Amino acid sequence: MSRIKNLREEALAFHAVRPGKLEVKVTVPANDRDDLTLAYSPGVADPVKEIAKDLANLDVYTNHANYVCIVSDGTAILGLGNLGPAAAMPVMEGKALLFKAFADVDAFPICVNTNDIDKIVELVELMAPTFGGVNLEDIKAPECFEIEGKLKARNIFKGPIFHDDQHGTAVVTLAGLFNALKVVGKRIDKIKVVTNGAGAAGIAIIKLMMSMGLKNVIMCDTKGAIYKGRPEGMNKYKDEIAEKTNYEMCTGSLRDAIKGADVFIGVSAPDSIDEEMIKSMAKDPIVFAQANPIPEIWPIERAINAGAAVISTGRSDVINQINNVLAFPGMFRGAIDVRATDINDAMKIAAAQAIANCVKPEELCADYIIPSAFNPEVAAAVAAATAKAAMESGIARNPIDPALVAENLKKRLANQYK
Amino acid sequence: MSRIKNLREEALAFHAVRPGKLEVKVTVPANDRDDLTLAYSPGVADPVKEIAKDLANLDVYTNHANYVCIVSDGTAILGLGNLGPAAAMPVMEGKALLFKAFADVDAFPICVNTNDIDKIVELVELMAPTFGGVNLEDIKAPECFEIEGKLKARNIFKGPIFHDDQHGTAVVTLAGLFNALKVVGKRIDKIKVVTNGAGAAGIAIIKLMMSMGLKNVIMCDTKGAIYKGRPEGMNKYKDEIAEKTNYEMCTGSLRDAIKGADVFIGVSAPDSIDEEMIKSMAKDPIVFAQANPIPEIWPIERAINAGAAVISTGRSDVINQINNVLAFPGMFRGAIDVRATDINDAMKIAAAQAIANCVKPEELCADYIIPSAFNPEVAAAVAAATAKAAMESGIARNPIDPALVAENLKKRLANQYK
Repeated sequence: MSRIKNLREEALAFHAVRPGKLEVKVTVPANDRDDLTLAYSPGVADPVKEIAKDLANLDVYTNHANYVCIVSDGTAILGLGNLGPAAAMPVMEGKALLFKAFADVDAFPICVNTNDIDKIVELVELMAPTFGGVNLEDIKAPECFEIEGKLKARNIFKGPIFHDDQHGTAVVTLAGLFNALKVVGKRIDKIKVVTNGAGAAGIAIIKLMMSMGLKNVIMCDTKGAIYKGRPEGMNKYKDEIAEKTNYEMCTGSLRDAIKGADVFIGVSAPDSIDEEMIKSMAKDPIVFAQANPIPEIWPIERAINAGAAVISTGRSDVINQINNVLAFPGMFRGAIDVRATDINDAMKIAAAQAIANCVKPEELCADYIIPSAFNPEVAAAVAAATAKAAMESGIARNPIDPALVAENLKKRLANQYK
Repeated sequence: MSRIKNLREEALAFHAVRPGKLEVKVTVPANDRDDLTLAYSPGVADPVKEIAKDLANLDVYTNHANYVCIVSDGTAILGLGNLGPAAAMPVMEGKALLFKAFADVDAFPICVNTNDIDKIVELVELMAPTFGGVNLEDIKAPECFEIEGKLKARNIFKGPIFHDDQHGTAVVTLAGLFNALKVVGKRIDKIKVVTNGAGAAGIAIIKLMMSMGLKNVIMCDTKGAIYKGRPEGMNKYKDEIAEKTNYEMCTGSLRDAIKGADVFIGVSAPDSIDEEMIKSMAKDPIVFAQANPIPEIWPIERAINAGAAVISTGRSDVINQINNVLAFPGMFRGAIDVRATDINDAMKIAAAQAIANCVKPEELCADYIIPSAFNPEVAAAVAAATAKAAMESGIARNPIDPALVAENLKKRLANQYK
């Protein structure tokens, strides 16, 4: 049971105490002259000179590798839309809180007062001496694809670059799908998946699932099924999707497309589907209704009553919550610990498998396909799996035993509140 | 006595522990689902909406006002020169440590991979939704003047903008001068001051002293006295200085200029002055030999033996240390608490007076003109004085009783290590 009686009032009070949710804390002694002699002048000159000699020493003598900037322009804040970079600050402070609490990553909000793609890309690149990684957040599509794509292609910023709204959601959704398919006894290469929503999350989910063997997909948006040559509401990302999906060439609405589907994935809006649509799906339909805060069908019992074999939502008050916090903290921990130069598909898939495997086979059932966000094993398992996949892909500059990555995280979290 | 036996070895080990000196810490509970409901989704939506409605709420629901970015391009790192932005990171982490330990300001290093003035200015401006203040650090002259000047003139970044290498040094040097003049019984409007060094610190020191009534000044650089029309080694900042100083039109060397001076201020290099030069000064000469780590005359006993009535240096192992940590943490605390839109000359002078007044009249003597960096009264006094001056200048958006500013800082520091 929740202690919260009045969410709005309590949330505002919660944020107003210090105010905000973060501080920059000192990790070394700073109590007397000797401490400052070591931490600042003249002692600091020695680490400075070591870094000037060899850039690899940046990670030996500073916290650079563990600093992640959470970059947002505030154009797609939660489900609230474009409210600008200042209004995004509470979300980015909250995101940093999750990075810290779940994986001891020192993330810092960088809310930027521009929507210019090239300016955002340049700003991130200019800050490469400071930050070891970048998490893009709450930037609207298609700009988010452009920014991430340019940062990766230019490779001036050398560390992990991750757009959580795309890839975090894709990883946790894939984890849910792995377990949901086990529950209904189906294989990813034999199923039909229909989505509603072809923005950042929808496209990333489908791309990641296709890399795991999914073949039969129809993505829908507000104009219905996306197909090659559709005259309206296309962009270059939807054109690319149209090339690879919808081989049935369905040109109708979501209601037409969903017929016979094994899986529905909603990353769209409330009231997108109804009982009749679920009944038109294949046997044992899987319904992931992830619109936030109100799912595509609500209350969720309507989906179950219409025959959904497995459901998930984005809500914490319903079974099987698709919660990005299961993925991004551990993924960054693993990527940072082995000094990965990127977070690639192999690392995302490994993270999804690790999340799915946190549900033990004997516990797995329709009501329990996704582990709890508070399961302390998840971040450690995700970190180890991500690190291992980075090493196997050859993008880890500092290979270490994945078991040590998991152990290291548990130690970090145990020390964190001392 | 210092515990430090081998500075280099111990300084490197000190920096390598976690590694670095900072972390981003969570200030709210994050232990269970209810905590995350308030801190993140869905609770965070309410502060987001309040900020979108009224930008003033940014300081009510986030830590924005207390976030200060420490911006450096690494072109003038301590006394080490241009070693680049990555090598600057240990210094900027150390600076953030001082901000936190002395004034509970949450400063974060932003080391930027460019020397382009306009790019640095734009980067700072783009981050205005995140940071309440800017501290420029270890950027070489004259670029530091340009960057600070443009940021202030454009006024896109609305909070305090401060280049500590200029103004922090100027404030503490002025504090030292106030007390040194009391010791020797001279008045600022009647004395002759000669400097060696016409970079960021030297020019800022002289400008601030002239705003307090100093009239007779000769600034020297490696080419000797700066005078109007000097054919070599000038720039627009030195041209401006030449217009306002050196009415004697001294065109010779430092050795010529220093004759008859009441005060020598060195912000230059070791071995710039000798006993003969001190002996050529006026009665009761004041010698501020602030080159770091080796003063302009060393060991400092040479200056005393040559007749210096009052000395100061930048070193912690000599009496009267001119240490910027006496100024910048308290100045930012005061500026932030009253939401000052700038740090102006009135605030700098008020801070200098507050520092000088921390030496009690009955304690004041040649050996004690500057309070200790560890005197816990200094930051509180500086914060209160800076806040008061901001309010009196009409640039405080949130006027409060200066006594509360001091009290508030003491409470913050008392809570900090709990």
